[in-house]
Amino acid sequence: MEGECTRRGEGQVETSEAVHRVAEPPPQSTVDKMKVRMKETFFPDDPFRRFKGQPLKRKWVLAAQYLFPVLDWAPSYSFSLFKSDLVAGLTIASLAIPQGISYAKLASLPPVVGLYTSFVPPLVYSVLGSSRDLAVGPVSIASLVMGSMLRQVANPNTDPYLFLQLAFTATFFAGLFQASLGILRLGFIIDFLSKATLVGFMAGSAIIVSLQQLRNLLGIVHFTKKMGVVPVMSSVFHNTNEWSWQTAAMGICFLAFLLLARHVGMRRPKLYWISVGAPLASVIVSTLVVFLLKAQNHGISTIGKLRCGLNRPSWDKLLFDGTHLSATMKTGLVTGIISLAEGIASGRTFASLRSYKVDGNKEMMAIGLMNIVGSCTSCYVSTGAFSRSAVNHNAGCKTAMSNVVMATTVMVTLLLLMPLFAYTPNVVLAAIIIAAVVGLVDVPAACNIWKLDKVDFLVCLSSFLGVVFVSVQQGLATAIGLSTFRILLQITRPKMIAVGNIPGTSIYRDMHQYKEAKGVPGFLILAIEAPINFSNTTYLNERITRWIENETNETTMEDKEASLRFLILDLSAVPTVDTSGITFLNELKKSTEKDGLEVIFVNPMGEVMEKLQRANKIHEFLGVGSLYLTIGEAVISLSPFIKESA
Amino acid sequence: MEGECTRRGEGQVETSEAVHRVAEPPPQSTVDKMKVRMKETFFPDDPFRRFKGQPLKRKWVLAAQYLFPVLDWAPSYSFSLFKSDLVAGLTIASLAIPQGISYAKLASLPPVVGLYTSFVPPLVYSVLGSSRDLAVGPVSIASLVMGSMLRQVANPNTDPYLFLQLAFTATFFAGLFQASLGILRLGFIIDFLSKATLVGFMAGSAIIVSLQQLRNLLGIVHFTKKMGVVPVMSSVFHNTNEWSWQTAAMGICFLAFLLLARHVGMRRPKLYWISVGAPLASVIVSTLVVFLLKAQNHGISTIGKLRCGLNRPSWDKLLFDGTHLSATMKTGLVTGIISLAEGIASGRTFASLRSYKVDGNKEMMAIGLMNIVGSCTSCYVSTGAFSRSAVNHNAGCKTAMSNVVMATTVMVTLLLLMPLFAYTPNVVLAAIIIAAVVGLVDVPAACNIWKLDKVDFLVCLSSFLGVVFVSVQQGLATAIGLSTFRILLQITRPKMIAVGNIPGTSIYRDMHQYKEAKGVPGFLILAIEAPINFSNTTYLNERITRWIENETNETTMEDKEASLRFLILDLSAVPTVDTSGITFLNELKKSTEKDGLEVIFVNPMGEVMEKLQRANKIHEFLGVGSLYLTIGEAVISLSPFIKESA
Repeated sequence: MEGECTRRGEGQVETSEAVHRVAEPPPQSTVDKMKVRMKETFFPDDPFRRFKGQPLKRKWVLAAQYLFPVLDWAPSYSFSLFKSDLVAGLTIASLAIPQGISYAKLASLPPVVGLYTSFVPPLVYSVLGSSRDLAVGPVSIASLVMGSMLRQVANPNTDPYLFLQLAFTATFFAGLFQASLGILRLGFIIDFLSKATLVGFMAGSAIIVSLQQLRNLLGIVHFTKKMGVVPVMSSVFHNTNEWSWQTAAMGICFLAFLLLARHVGMRRPKLYWISVGAPLASVIVSTLVVFLLKAQNHGISTIGKLRCGLNRPSWDKLLFDGTHLSATMKTGLVTGIISLAEGIASGRTFASLRSYKVDGNKEMMAIGLMNIVGSCTSCYVSTGAFSRSAVNHNAGCKTAMSNVVMATTVMVTLLLLMPLFAYTPNVVLAAIIIAAVVGLVDVPAACNIWKLDKVDFLVCLSSFLGVVFVSVQQGLATAIGLSTFRILLQITRPKMIAVGNIPGTSIYRDMHQYKEAKGVPGFLILAIEAPINFSNTTYLNERITRWIENETNETTMEDKEASLRFLILDLSAVPTVDTSGITFLNELKKSTEKDGLEVIFVNPMGEVMEKLQRANKIHEFLGVGSLYLTIGEAVISLSPFIKESA
Repeated sequence: MEGECTRRGEGQVETSEAVHRVAEPPPQSTVDKMKVRMKETFFPDDPFRRFKGQPLKRKWVLAAQYLFPVLDWAPSYSFSLFKSDLVAGLTIASLAIPQGISYAKLASLPPVVGLYTSFVPPLVYSVLGSSRDLAVGPVSIASLVMGSMLRQVANPNTDPYLFLQLAFTATFFAGLFQASLGILRLGFIIDFLSKATLVGFMAGSAIIVSLQQLRNLLGIVHFTKKMGVVPVMSSVFHNTNEWSWQTAAMGICFLAFLLLARHVGMRRPKLYWISVGAPLASVIVSTLVVFLLKAQNHGISTIGKLRCGLNRPSWDKLLFDGTHLSATMKTGLVTGIISLAEGIASGRTFASLRSYKVDGNKEMMAIGLMNIVGSCTSCYVSTGAFSRSAVNHNAGCKTAMSNVVMATTVMVTLLLLMPLFAYTPNVVLAAIIIAAVVGLVDVPAACNIWKLDKVDFLVCLSSFLGVVFVSVQQGLATAIGLSTFRILLQITRPKMIAVGNIPGTSIYRDMHQYKEAKGVPGFLILAIEAPINFSNTTYLNERITRWIENETNETTMEDKEASLRFLILDLSAVPTVDTSGITFLNELKKSTEKDGLEVIFVNPMGEVMEKLQRANKIHEFLGVGSLYLTIGEAVISLSPFIKESA
């Protein structure tokens, strides 16, 4: 019978406090339970909450606003908001144009593709995205990864058209994957890129990217296609005869200027515009220098002629045939996850600064759709860039309109200003990339991780070393594997705590942590701090046996009067139990009974209580008085039995 | 300052109960912590415990006894024990001989290999093994898996020598893998084969094995090499012209006899010898029938001539060249895990029936070493068989000597009786296999799993269907993946509980489970039931926001007097926290402060408390009065502030 589990049959003990009953949760059908669990798994933010109790028409409006956040802010958009957005938009455009060209080169794509990617995706995002601060466009790490992964299947120099096709196809898959994650509400997958993983990953990527730029910085012609530190450095030092001192001098000057500007911008927040304007200024100055000195004839390589014109449709370039499908899908998956992580993290960071909400799953749909549209309009993978979003935020953007302003500026560039880039030297683009990625090496964050959690630091380090010495994907995979393994290990080897009474109270706490907590003679009180399931029942069994043996040895040595009679298991911190766990509890109860030890369960939670009751109908292992609501009540009720036997 | 965290600065509130301090655990160096964690991870059973404080000589004896459990029981071995072991050993030998031949055929190996495998490994085990009940030899599922995996790389009919080489090599790798698991104390890996997985897996395997036997039962010559239900059944019904009615009639008769004997043995435990003796009786009777009626000329296939002689050395047959290495390693890994799981589970089951201990990691070393030795002496993979161990146990075995008796009997058979098997029909072996594996379909266990836990049942079902319709490895992998995913999901979507006060007590419990528990106005009390880490901080953030919004909406509707002032997070059930978790707690504190809500932490456990303190040195987010030892104390101490503000 339910609830008949306090020790009544054996003669109720008179105690000062009443003994409380352990309740089962209210009955609920399996279907209802599944519904609740599904909701918690896929809809923890309860997006349908605001639809509740609204009239039908209002529901439609809300649904439209949900799908197109632009409808949220556009109706009340004002000129004063636009003024702010205009300033912010022009500011990020001055960054987006040189960075777009540079990042496209990082991905071994034609420079103009970087500008295309700064034009269409921001427009799509301004309609679909829910962040007000995100500046959308190509980003360094995703460009690096896409380039390195696709170079393994196609050569961008000998077969540029195929390479372009593969890039667009990979972008399409990245978008499809991102949008699917959002629609299927599986956004929690990107949560597995923990902060520790990302810190190591970004630092490693920054170093890889910077080293790659040594090629352009030194004017080397023959360079390795690989990404690791070792092949790149050997490539640099095996081709010293190709070093061009003119290129190197120019590169070092501009790099010094950019880093100085960055430093000033960080030190004096009011002068942040110096660091923002520096890349565009560098491009203009260096182009002029090359043009005036005819430096292209002195070994300084330039971008070369670029045709004017907007994005051309590229859906006919998407390649779905078998030979390259697995490569493009894999590239899409990896770049999709990486760019999604950057976009969502940036969006959330700035949203929390301004106290508005960014819906992760909706953002995924927006970023995914933006990449799908992008793949059909000659764009490669894009997302919300952290550094440019910070500039956008500092420049005072108010809505996603700043992205529209940026896109318009890029459009003007694409239509009219392309010939001006003909004399822009590649070395300046390299300097811009290095100056941009330096900020990704976050040493203080790594130090904090070291101070807080050594295992997290190990994750961070493995991600860093993996990226630097093996490959971007391997580094990421190792770090994710390690952090997942850590979670599994925490379940497989759960914490068990020996609990004692704090004298003068009914509080029971960890005897290791609280020196004043004292064990109760005749009782062994253990708290289990994890779900009890197949992966840890063997461990729990061995560990509990050890506790009992230790306890028995101690008591027999000290005094024979109060030998161990009761094993109290505090289940307060056991959220769930599975069939193996139930079997374990049942067998523990039986095996300890042989040694004259009774197992008492304290405060099983809803689901655990329910399963104990159900198992009891099969195995009948919950005797009268096997369940108590608190440790204190159990000890008080059962103490007389110890004295009896003593 | 440490420990200065109770609300003192703001004017200590006078309460009836004293407010207790939250203590940090005693300081411990990182190295010491690592040591403790390593011990809990790899040595939870503390095998060195009994060496403590013993003199050196005694330590050597204990070490020898640890490595060779035979030294434990051999010195005190007596004639009365031997009598029991003799009976048990002869009983299991009568099972082992026909089963050995049958299982070897199941693995597409020569029948004599099955007998070899029932000779050497039991001898090795009797020296190294710590179980007294385990009957060692070839088992059905591992034979099935090895056969099906190796048939994909070599044909046992056209290239029997290569197939034999591969089988020995795979056995070597299986043993190596098993022994390594034991030596590296990674035995917890086999815990991931949960009970639900095994129930489904064994039932599926039994069906696959039985269906395979249709070949011999119907006398079909041309049969598929695949294991799935679909190809096997189509093979059976596309070759109806090959059916031999004589074979089928004989098979059905013996199968009916064996099943009847099994039924009688299960119904009347005293008559268990009928079911035990039935296989040997079937072999003898059928061999006589074939010999007398010359039935081999009427379409009944027989084993054929077998040479007398003991195991020949086979280390020269081990193949380590590149072409087959990956196949043999994979086969070794899969059969190694499967046979280990069966051996350990059987050992533990019978050990708990007789209240002695089986050391999992030591058993792994014993089984692994036995397979390595086996692979060098013409044996294929062997382990402790569940069904034969049950017979051994029932027949009253006392020590591992029963394995020696069995091995001796098999030796006599190998030396003298081999010619007698020449006329044994294959169809009887098929009947023996079917009768043996029928017991693996455990419907009541599946029903119990369904009653207790629907997700576990899903795991069980996926394992069953995967094995039956796809392949043994796929079925196992799916089930393990699913149960691991479930654990991860439990962490990614942890339980959060809204806690309320049980009137008249200081007990706070789940308001959903305990209808009498009431919320405290002005407080939102939440308990988190999982480690707080990277995988769930986003969820926790969204979920807590939803709780706060719900609470705020309700209170504003009901009464304005007690608006939400304090969010109490009960961390009693949070065993660990990582850097993402700390960042989350820090940001939660900051973001709720903007809404005039104060976050209070209750009872952080040792590790969590330590990290909170360390993080506090960096971020300073633990104000005075942010920490309490119990919810009750927090509520009593903070209530006056609510009345003040109201």
